[in-house]
Amino acid sequence: MTEFGFIAHIQQLFAGIPDHGFEGIGDDCAVLPVGGGESLVFTADLLVEGVHFLRHAASAREIGRKSLAVNLSDVASMGAQPVATLLSIALPPDAAGTWAEEFMEGYRELSAEYSTALIGGDTTRSAAGITINVTAIGRIRDERIKRRSAARPGDRIFVGGELGASGTGLRDLLAGRLDTPAAAVHRNPQPQVAEGIWLGRHDAVHAMMDISDGLASDILHLLERSGTGAEIDLDRIPVAEGSDLETAACAGEDYKLLFTVAADAAERLAAEFRDRFGSPIYPIGRITDSGGLVWTRNEKPVPLDWHGFRHY
Amino acid sequence: MTEFGFIAHIQQLFAGIPDHGFEGIGDDCAVLPVGGGESLVFTADLLVEGVHFLRHAASAREIGRKSLAVNLSDVASMGAQPVATLLSIALPPDAAGTWAEEFMEGYRELSAEYSTALIGGDTTRSAAGITINVTAIGRIRDERIKRRSAARPGDRIFVGGELGASGTGLRDLLAGRLDTPAAAVHRNPQPQVAEGIWLGRHDAVHAMMDISDGLASDILHLLERSGTGAEIDLDRIPVAEGSDLETAACAGEDYKLLFTVAADAAERLAAEFRDRFGSPIYPIGRITDSGGLVWTRNEKPVPLDWHGFRHY
Repeated sequence: MTEFGFIAHIQQLFAGIPDHGFEGIGDDCAVLPVGGGESLVFTADLLVEGVHFLRHAASAREIGRKSLAVNLSDVASMGAQPVATLLSIALPPDAAGTWAEEFMEGYRELSAEYSTALIGGDTTRSAAGITINVTAIGRIRDERIKRRSAARPGDRIFVGGELGASGTGLRDLLAGRLDTPAAAVHRNPQPQVAEGIWLGRHDAVHAMMDISDGLASDILHLLERSGTGAEIDLDRIPVAEGSDLETAACAGEDYKLLFTVAADAAERLAAEFRDRFGSPIYPIGRITDSGGLVWTRNEKPVPLDWHGFRHY
Repeated sequence: MTEFGFIAHIQQLFAGIPDHGFEGIGDDCAVLPVGGGESLVFTADLLVEGVHFLRHAASAREIGRKSLAVNLSDVASMGAQPVATLLSIALPPDAAGTWAEEFMEGYRELSAEYSTALIGGDTTRSAAGITINVTAIGRIRDERIKRRSAARPGDRIFVGGELGASGTGLRDLLAGRLDTPAAAVHRNPQPQVAEGIWLGRHDAVHAMMDISDGLASDILHLLERSGTGAEIDLDRIPVAEGSDLETAACAGEDYKLLFTVAADAAERLAAEFRDRFGSPIYPIGRITDSGGLVWTRNEKPVPLDWHGFRHY
């Protein structure tokens, strides 16, 4: 069973259990309205040695930062402000000393940068390999929550930054080229936290998510939940320097925001974003009534069998 | 560094970061007041193959139940009602099929029993061994929260059930005796969820926690946070059938509640508990002004160098 098949199976299994007000599986975070016009959001990510990171190819400090970064990205992609995390870590004997301390130093650095409290978790020994789970909690005004399901036909589709550097960096790492600029990007993802919170405050922004498994894969979840299709212009996908178009469209772990904006507000929003953050957002296409995902070039469909990146 | 040393180190590292209203590390759960007189509580536990369970010595369904049970125990030991969980699981190829499905069936059974929604998580492959993290969320009226820090001199100390069966069962399992009654208890912990919620509603109950690492170890945390000492009468520790006193006092994973009660209300509370649940609670000693933990027999101190169970 694939990861998505397993998740669908789980959703069906749990369908009969009361939700206690939680809006659960299916978005970047679960949402719980807590009254006073506010909600909390929750997300969890597991990082496994040998699957998500290689101990010889990243420092403990970088892995500490990355464990947190990928969760902050999920929180911010709902428009929410991350406020706290729980960290669980299983450590084999050869990582229990210096490695663990440097990991925590990296985790603390990024926690301080985004002002997220560490409120709990678990530490234990491991028989083989390091495993890390982070659960992140965010807070948001109800009306600012950005869901995958809110895209509307006619919306312009944007990505929040260049794509492909992380995928190119992973290839470099696997080939033993640890010191390339792309490898450094792969090891040090920069979640668009301030950007996600800022976009959350704009009503013209409809649907939002982060790109963790690759644009080609992630956008399908947004389309499915919104009941829409999309056309994406291949020439408008912002390819990071040193990467290529297919890697930019298909490789994972860029952690850039993917969002849709009401057409009549798109240009103004892009200008305001650039004023605020000093970097552009990239219009890559538009939401359509139906018809799934269509890649285009010069406004003509291009048949491509591109899939996202899959860990599992 | 021991687990507790590592946790103290982490608390110090994060001391400068704003808490956003969370009452963090140090109790069975972190607490967040959400307004309207209510709080949410949060806890996470990691279960690692070869450390917390052996695949040949427990069924996938039992491991699914246990992964949830240990977290429900932490939530209920604050007096809170568990409402939702996030489940992260790393699966090696030989556990990705039937094993994973049976695991989820066990997890679902206990979720349905306690009406806890599954709201998120992560699934991934593992290079070696199964690792499971559960984050549980509970809800409670602020005035009912039971903290480790609330014990007062003169309080009577109670445990919520017999101790030692799980530790005896673990010994049986490790010796290859998989079918003993104690081994079944070890594989199938019964968290005292309804009992914890009920005790939470009684003002006479002051401090509460669950016994996961062993009475001898866990009570020290309660004493430290309350700034008190305790006398525990060795002859009053309720030893499970087939177990022995030292195992009952020192072995872990019994998941019974440990709590302190105002002396003048203790007898009435014990009678009401028996009426409500059909089983007794056990008075094992009293909270003292200071002097740490003193084991007694016939009201005389007994020098014992007993420690709790330690995974890590």
